[in-house]
Amino acid sequence: MTAQSFRVGWIGSGLMGLPMARHVLAAGHDVTVFARTPARAAPLVQAGAGAARTVADAVRGADVVVTIVSAPADVEQIYLGEDGVLANAAAGTVAVDMTTSAPDLARRITEASADRGITVLDAPVSGGPAGAQAGALSVMVGGDADGLQRVRPVLDAFASEVVHHGLAGSGQLAKLVNQTLVAGITLAACEAFVLARTGGLDVELVADSVRPGVAGSSLFDFVWSRLREGDLEPGFRLDHLRKDLGLVAEAAGDVELPGTALVTELVDKVRHQRGGDCGTQALVTALMEWPT
Amino acid sequence: MTAQSFRVGWIGSGLMGLPMARHVLAAGHDVTVFARTPARAAPLVQAGAGAARTVADAVRGADVVVTIVSAPADVEQIYLGEDGVLANAAAGTVAVDMTTSAPDLARRITEASADRGITVLDAPVSGGPAGAQAGALSVMVGGDADGLQRVRPVLDAFASEVVHHGLAGSGQLAKLVNQTLVAGITLAACEAFVLARTGGLDVELVADSVRPGVAGSSLFDFVWSRLREGDLEPGFRLDHLRKDLGLVAEAAGDVELPGTALVTELVDKVRHQRGGDCGTQALVTALMEWPT
Repeated sequence: MTAQSFRVGWIGSGLMGLPMARHVLAAGHDVTVFARTPARAAPLVQAGAGAARTVADAVRGADVVVTIVSAPADVEQIYLGEDGVLANAAAGTVAVDMTTSAPDLARRITEASADRGITVLDAPVSGGPAGAQAGALSVMVGGDADGLQRVRPVLDAFASEVVHHGLAGSGQLAKLVNQTLVAGITLAACEAFVLARTGGLDVELVADSVRPGVAGSSLFDFVWSRLREGDLEPGFRLDHLRKDLGLVAEAAGDVELPGTALVTELVDKVRHQRGGDCGTQALVTALMEWPT
Repeated sequence: MTAQSFRVGWIGSGLMGLPMARHVLAAGHDVTVFARTPARAAPLVQAGAGAARTVADAVRGADVVVTIVSAPADVEQIYLGEDGVLANAAAGTVAVDMTTSAPDLARRITEASADRGITVLDAPVSGGPAGAQAGALSVMVGGDADGLQRVRPVLDAFASEVVHHGLAGSGQLAKLVNQTLVAGITLAACEAFVLARTGGLDVELVADSVRPGVAGSSLFDFVWSRLREGDLEPGFRLDHLRKDLGLVAEAAGDVELPGTALVTELVDKVRHQRGGDCGTQALVTALMEWPT
């Protein structure tokens, strides 16, 4: 163990959590993992992590706790439940929730953590499974600056960019801003694809013209390359985008975002027709005939 | 004059045409310019171009004609009118229309040019005034491949990317695909900005988190940097975007593009309230209170 090595309680070993935790192990930290589906934690245990049978087990004796699970309901239970982080972590622990979740919930958990001497940060990431595997995620952090300072060595194991956005909840809100952009660009890329394809253009050549210009982005490249191959597999699942869009609507409150509302409506239409397991590029099927 | 030097008849000396023609002059070609407003051609004449009093004057004796004007109606008159390109250019001339215009009109002009032995290409550009000044435009070409081959030395004077998309009209359609994407990203960037600003985030920090991710693009950077400064000046004028969106709707025909239709509606709302001379980032004013 090096001087900067931590005992890390790690909750969640899915598409994102597993490769992130691997980087943390590789950086020399001592990781104890809990996953609701124990088989998912197995690759980490094989790589040297300890196995915890409960959240409480993973959290006790940790300096740092990282949670990255599916949805706000899971986050709420993991932090505020009887078996959870706040009830079982030692005073002085810094816990980092990296799930994309609700800013309000992040504030609520931070308030609840204060009289226990536990620091909770909200720190969702962008970059997807590819970024997680490459250790090149962008982390958006809300909450106590000193707490962030302390856990930086753990975050740096898998992040290429860490930005502190302010008080509790601001990391989540920054992520939702990013997802608003992701949703709108995905629809725009699908509509542009429909215009190109129905107009008889060679979409690969069009991508060559678009890519170097102001509208080029790696999301555009992703959507068009999948659509060109007729491939609707995820990448980024429609159900996950839908979850994020619900959080955007909740965070926006009375503020109307008509483009985002339109994407939400089209996402629901495609989920109804094809299920939510397909990739976000399947939005195109709401716009044109698509071979099934 | 070098071996690859052409006599170029140049029609149009606006925000795009002027810097493009400067590059053509600097590359050693012999340029004769016509502008509807003669004062606009003056900087080119001062730089060594000949001045033409009519389109016909600019076109006679040219090997290559370049037109870059405002709208399809101008293009139609310049090519098909009595004083126009087809009536006055010599057989063997290659004429390149770089205006963003209608694919149908491009096809119509190409058909009309055939029995006169003139080659007409549709070749709109992306990159804006900044790209024109830097000589780094992306050119989307439709029409005869041999004709393109012959005018490449002229295009290369101001282009960093030249892609041949196919038959007449395909360059225009590729540009409209690009504009569909530009429109959608502009709205998405405005909605994301509204969520960030009304949620109390530091938008500069949010841009730092978004930029390296999948949704980062130079258009996002442009929109957010202007909005952060409270600056609604163009960049890219709302009236020009509206013109392009009309061409998109015309080219799409029966194909519905609901996101693009929504942007069009919001653009019209803002033009009605603030006029069409403001920049496309003024779309934000349809979404939130904005200081006037």
